[in-house]
Amino acid sequence: MSTAEDMAEDVAADLQRQMLALGAAARAAAALLARTPTAAKNLALGAAAAAMRDGAAAILAANATDMAAAELRDLSPALLDRLLLTPDRIEAMAGGLEAVAELTDPVGNIMSEWQRPNGLRIARVRVPLGVIGIIYESRPNVTADAGALCLKSGNAAILRGGSESFHSSRAIHACLLAGLRAAGLPDGAIQLVPTTDRAAVGMMLTMPQHIDIIVPRGGRGLIERVQTESRIPVIAHLDGNCHVYVDGSADLEMARQISLNAKLRRTGICGAAETLLVDSHCAASHLAPLVADLLDAGCEVRGDGNTQRLDQRVVAALDSDWRTEYLDRIIAVKVVNGVDAAIAHIETYGSHHTDCIIADDVAVAERFLAEVDSAIVLHNASTQFADGGEFGMGAEIGISTNRLHARGPVGVEQLTSYKYVVHGQGQTRP
Amino acid sequence: MSTAEDMAEDVAADLQRQMLALGAAARAAAALLARTPTAAKNLALGAAAAAMRDGAAAILAANATDMAAAELRDLSPALLDRLLLTPDRIEAMAGGLEAVAELTDPVGNIMSEWQRPNGLRIARVRVPLGVIGIIYESRPNVTADAGALCLKSGNAAILRGGSESFHSSRAIHACLLAGLRAAGLPDGAIQLVPTTDRAAVGMMLTMPQHIDIIVPRGGRGLIERVQTESRIPVIAHLDGNCHVYVDGSADLEMARQISLNAKLRRTGICGAAETLLVDSHCAASHLAPLVADLLDAGCEVRGDGNTQRLDQRVVAALDSDWRTEYLDRIIAVKVVNGVDAAIAHIETYGSHHTDCIIADDVAVAERFLAEVDSAIVLHNASTQFADGGEFGMGAEIGISTNRLHARGPVGVEQLTSYKYVVHGQGQTRP
Repeated sequence: MSTAEDMAEDVAADLQRQMLALGAAARAAAALLARTPTAAKNLALGAAAAAMRDGAAAILAANATDMAAAELRDLSPALLDRLLLTPDRIEAMAGGLEAVAELTDPVGNIMSEWQRPNGLRIARVRVPLGVIGIIYESRPNVTADAGALCLKSGNAAILRGGSESFHSSRAIHACLLAGLRAAGLPDGAIQLVPTTDRAAVGMMLTMPQHIDIIVPRGGRGLIERVQTESRIPVIAHLDGNCHVYVDGSADLEMARQISLNAKLRRTGICGAAETLLVDSHCAASHLAPLVADLLDAGCEVRGDGNTQRLDQRVVAALDSDWRTEYLDRIIAVKVVNGVDAAIAHIETYGSHHTDCIIADDVAVAERFLAEVDSAIVLHNASTQFADGGEFGMGAEIGISTNRLHARGPVGVEQLTSYKYVVHGQGQTRP
Repeated sequence: MSTAEDMAEDVAADLQRQMLALGAAARAAAALLARTPTAAKNLALGAAAAAMRDGAAAILAANATDMAAAELRDLSPALLDRLLLTPDRIEAMAGGLEAVAELTDPVGNIMSEWQRPNGLRIARVRVPLGVIGIIYESRPNVTADAGALCLKSGNAAILRGGSESFHSSRAIHACLLAGLRAAGLPDGAIQLVPTTDRAAVGMMLTMPQHIDIIVPRGGRGLIERVQTESRIPVIAHLDGNCHVYVDGSADLEMARQISLNAKLRRTGICGAAETLLVDSHCAASHLAPLVADLLDAGCEVRGDGNTQRLDQRVVAALDSDWRTEYLDRIIAVKVVNGVDAAIAHIETYGSHHTDCIIADDVAVAERFLAEVDSAIVLHNASTQFADGGEFGMGAEIGISTNRLHARGPVGVEQLTSYKYVVHGQGQTRP
């Protein structure tokens, strides 16, 4: 074997050892975190927020290193913006840590409790999941958000940030560590993978003895890689191809306001609407103003035949448009024949994330809410409300398109499992 | 290519087409079942029970075919017993269908509901998981139990029984079909894979577009194959290496009764105790009678040094004994130094299934219940209570050792997901 091959093998073996050590430390910390009192966890979060404010200059300097490297690599302006930290953004991160401290601690919560005829008392009690592996891309703030949510829910976290944000994430992680130490909690509670080697991700995905669940946060490429390679259960958010359906019974003014907001308030979030469906029964009155609003607001409209005839600015929609999550100032528009056709369209092309009906007819709305099989279904409200904070669940680690375990916003409660605690007085089973 | 290879390829392609057709029919049925009223599901279950009683002779004849083939293949007496159907067992299956009809329908249940300051009303509502694939071995009654639980929870089922029970399962499935038809429900609601070709299992595990979750029921080999190969989330029950820990504060009489019951009531179920841990603080008084009870009841005892010194019938325990799920009249016995050592032993060697402490000291018991990280932890009650029926949850499809989604007994409620239903009055997000 050549010396170069020997060296490559040594590097891989070293990394493997390093990752397994990270895993073992996380597992040990998880056992401790499962019985750490709320006060200690909150103390750590508060101290981390203070360390972040005190260390803002160091975080900005680290971020400047990342930004300089990113500019040399000609990353897109959108990516550069995601990577950028400012004093305001650091303050927002610190405030986020304090907001997580304010959340109710789910661990130990008795979900239900009952007594059996033989006298056994059975309680279903929330417990942490264990060790959570978070794999993310360029946003360095995920380091703080994900670390805080895992800690509050009693889980140990292994964080693997993107290589673009490596220095920023390391500086943020140092503040989290300072918080843990101030509360007497082990460093193993929140660990950052200390390398940008992509092989580390593959190792995380194949350590079921040390990691209980993987949460990928990023683009479709990352999610699909994780879902394909992981030997560990994944809580993933895939596409948010969200729909607004304007029923024949819809109030025009409400439909205009919700459609504009659902599409354009922020186009880059998963709850942004991507397709507008308009009932043929109100197309004559509703379609033109709805489309004009969007066009006038600078949104590209890709429409079916009916829509194209309205305005020469409308582009012809292809079949692929019904499946596309634009995350941009583009919307697909189609006329459908009533609520059944709308439901059929959404079930065919949608991604089961968030879908909305605008209707005055309550019976029609209830059919839509019952039959559209999405994590979130809304009546007369914007799809942009698809958010843990807006739902009153506090901070979230993402919105799950899984059907198992957690569906929709994933907050501290969704980062828990449960156990059955049974109290007897000597019962044996007949 | 040779003609034999051509033929093998044709067979594989045929099977693939057949499995995909099964999957598509299940997906279509699932959409319908999600909104099928409780009364229709219960009608189908009742009609299936009636068909089973009316068709008992046909089921027994089919079972005789399976039994004859099994005897020729020299299967073990335990396996033959699992395969055997009798009039009593058929009546028990029919009664089981009726018991599932009696269970509360989880679908549509509002798990929680709240209002936001902006007026949005948010409800978390139970919905079915979709299509459930069940892969099992020799017990033909799983066909009835699993089919019924999936139907009641609004899920479509694809059942893949073991080749040994093929004819029996087909006869039982015919009764389920009769029940579905009596209620006007599609055959796609409960389908049986119509071949014993093992390749069908591999295809089920790689049809995420048609199957939402896989539940394997059987031995370790099956479970591990499924967990390794599946591209679909798996709810699995792996080992039940259950412990009874007799604390220094334990009442001797209670400890004797629970230990005997936990080990010997039925040795083949996952909640049977496999290791007895005795606190050194009461070993002088408690160990001898506990071990004598077990030996006198015909149980083999594999003990540590302390236990071997008590009785010459005690066999020396190897390290592997602490890890073994015997499912037989064998128990491992060890003296440990207090509750901390007991917890450490269980965390090192246990399988996080079901563990019990016998203690009069409530503070010690609470520490054990909090710190032992198992799906079920019991104080002063037999581990044999690890059962959905005993928990008052009705019939179960198994006991999950997963941490995600469902942990412990998996009944109709655990076979559901949820969606968020949001009612607004025109709200847009600021």
